Amino acid sequence: MITLSSDFGWPYPAAMRGVIASRSDARLVDITHDFPRGDVYTSAFWLREILPWFPPSVHLVVIDPGVGTDRAVLAIEAGEHILVGPDNGVLLPAAKALSDDPRAFALESIEAESSTFHGRDVFAPLAARIHEWEAPLDTVPEMRSMDAVAEIEFPDPTITDEDALGEVLVVDGFGNAITNVPGEFLAEQMGEHIGVDGRSTPVARTYAAVDTGEPLVTVGSHGNVELAVRDGRGAAAFEVEKGSSIRLHR
Amino acid sequence: MITLSSDFGWPYPAAMRGVIASRSDARLVDITHDFPRGDVYTSAFWLREILPWFPPSVHLVVIDPGVGTDRAVLAIEAGEHILVGPDNGVLLPAAKALSDDPRAFALESIEAESSTFHGRDVFAPLAARIHEWEAPLDTVPEMRSMDAVAEIEFPDPTITDEDALGEVLVVDGFGNAITNVPGEFLAEQMGEHIGVDGRSTPVARTYAAVDTGEPLVTVGSHGNVELAVRDGRGAAAFEVEKGSSIRLHR
Amino acid sequence: MITLSSDFGWPYPAAMRGVIASRSDARLVDITHDFPRGDVYTSAFWLREILPWFPPSVHLVVIDPGVGTDRAVLAIEAGEHILVGPDNGVLLPAAKALSDDPRAFALESIEAESSTFHGRDVFAPLAARIHEWEAPLDTVPEMRSMDAVAEIEFPDPTITDEDALGEVLVVDGFGNAITNVPGEFLAEQMGEHIGVDGRSTPVARTYAAVDTGEPLVTVGSHGNVELAVRDGRGAAAFEVEKGSSIRLHR
Repeated sequence: MITLSSDFGWPYPAAMRGVIASRSDARLVDITHDFPRGDVYTSAFWLREILPWFPPSVHLVVIDPGVGTDRAVLAIEAGEHILVGPDNGVLLPAAKALSDDPRAFALESIEAESSTFHGRDVFAPLAARIHEWEAPLDTVPEMRSMDAVAEIEFPDPTITDEDALGEVLVVDGFGNAITNVPGEFLAEQMGEHIGVDGRSTPVARTYAAVDTGEPLVTVGSHGNVELAVRDGRGAAAFEVEKGSSIRLHR
Repeated sequence: MITLSSDFGWPYPAAMRGVIASRSDARLVDITHDFPRGDVYTSAFWLREILPWFPPSVHLVVIDPGVGTDRAVLAIEAGEHILVGPDNGVLLPAAKALSDDPRAFALESIEAESSTFHGRDVFAPLAARIHEWEAPLDTVPEMRSMDAVAEIEFPDPTITDEDALGEVLVVDGFGNAITNVPGEFLAEQMGEHIGVDGRSTPVARTYAAVDTGEPLVTVGSHGNVELAVRDGRGAAAFEVEKGSSIRLHR
Repeated sequence: MITLSSDFGWPYPAAMRGVIASRSDARLVDITHDFPRGDVYTSAFWLREILPWFPPSVHLVVIDPGVGTDRAVLAIEAGEHILVGPDNGVLLPAAKALSDDPRAFALESIEAESSTFHGRDVFAPLAARIHEWEAPLDTVPEMRSMDAVAEIEFPDPTITDEDALGEVLVVDGFGNAITNVPGEFLAEQMGEHIGVDGRSTPVARTYAAVDTGEPLVTVGSHGNVELAVRDGRGAAAFEVEKGSSIRLHR
């Protein structure tokens, strides 16, 4: 199986599908092609949340604002998974979620028809070849081991008995603001209220626990604290966006 | 085959794909993940129109504004199809279109990692298991028979020789307003004009029968009367939306 | 393999997937269903760019503003590929890119349940049947040879030593304005500046060669000159749209 992720929208993902289908019988499964354009940080967050739900696969990831520059073309072995994409940090959080000991390799020689669409000309062919090789990457002459690769790190919150100082990592398509505060912080407040930057807000296990249009604090499917509005957009209601600092206080 | 429907947009559908692919070799086919957020009624309409075109399948449907509440987790046998989703009415119109005698079952025990993403944690695993069981649901200990489930009913029009009092059921992505008036009402007016809330409008078999930008009344692919504009948005031109009353008069 | 292309958005493509899956075990691969509504010209451009990356396939293409009229229902043999769609020009540029000698056939008899959704009722069943026939179309009684079909031609630029008078063919989802001027026109200016309608603009191989928000002229993955902005929308910055005339001058 080869999964495909990009920020291409349409129609460019289809060219990658064609390139892979021309070189491999691998099953193709889309993650999404609607990652925010050039947003390596948000894409890395979602890939970390989603790829571990897949069976062993080759994961093609093309969020590549540096296309055509000298950034390396990576393949990272992470357990039985292999992630393929640019060396800009987008792969590493997912690789670390998949394995305690991911190993990075770079493509020795980049030959591309274009300087602007390495998804089609470099990454998709590499993903197809890796799928067909069925060999550990350290046995493949086309790849060389990398000691250091670009990393993205998500900030840690500061948590005391009284409060949690955290950050909005991403806003999802529903408008939920996903923070870096672990859901456990809410464990004893469930069913009660908590302060969000001074605003007393119900803490609930489900969106439907409050009335339509009402704000709530919950634990999202990623295990983190999430600022939400039932049938509405939490980020707008709490006036936050990616990167906003937030304080939860008991 | 397992089909997937949701209102998740991106990237959450990918987690469901991964969960299923981890547990089953079933072919995955997306219906759409762009159903209007939380709109059980509109989703039920489209599923009724679309699922009958599929060969026997397990249909995973996650339009679930009540996620995490005590609404049941359903599997409905409808002929050779099985629909899996929440007990909020979204499954039943399609189930009735697929079979005169659909039979509903509920999952006995709901064990979920999250309270906010049962698509990933409950419904997708259940769809995969049903696909693998290949057994009638009344022989499966994990499921219990349900006598009553939530229903959505689409309103009937009132039709006389002179007029039809109906309702806009949904507006499609093209902006066509799809009513509950059967297309037969137009049979004798084809090529002529009909009144729509007092406005004389051409009745045509095809959008291209009128000039670009002109309104028309036609019979949509669902067999119902549709208010449209060639290369434009009928709902805007006729000033209607989901739930609007309309009167067609000869 | 059957590829699917349309301007349907959601949920109509799913009905086509169901129809095909009911009649064929062919693998289904989406090109996109987000082609601009009714825009045969733009769709034809992208299909010409993308379909040649696929292995031999049946390509179902439903951009069909004349649905239900007497336009022919085509299948075009182009090498080992077969394109299926309406006779409005949308298929021909891709067919010519796939073969020097494409051969067009029309479906003898069109029997459709609807007049408004031939994608579901005519084109998808035909694509499935062609996939199953595995026979040259001139041996199939259901098809008749066509001498002339609708064509779309993309305009040629006028190029001198000093300048190129061209046109914006399409704007992609990133906002890049893709022109009809061949990339070779930039060969000697690479790394320098060129005039775009009087505005001196850097010429670069990659978007990342200029600062964020800065305009550039580059060679896109299609081989043509492209007006772009790093991490922004070139069409907006250069105030052009599909069909705009542009002049590049050294």
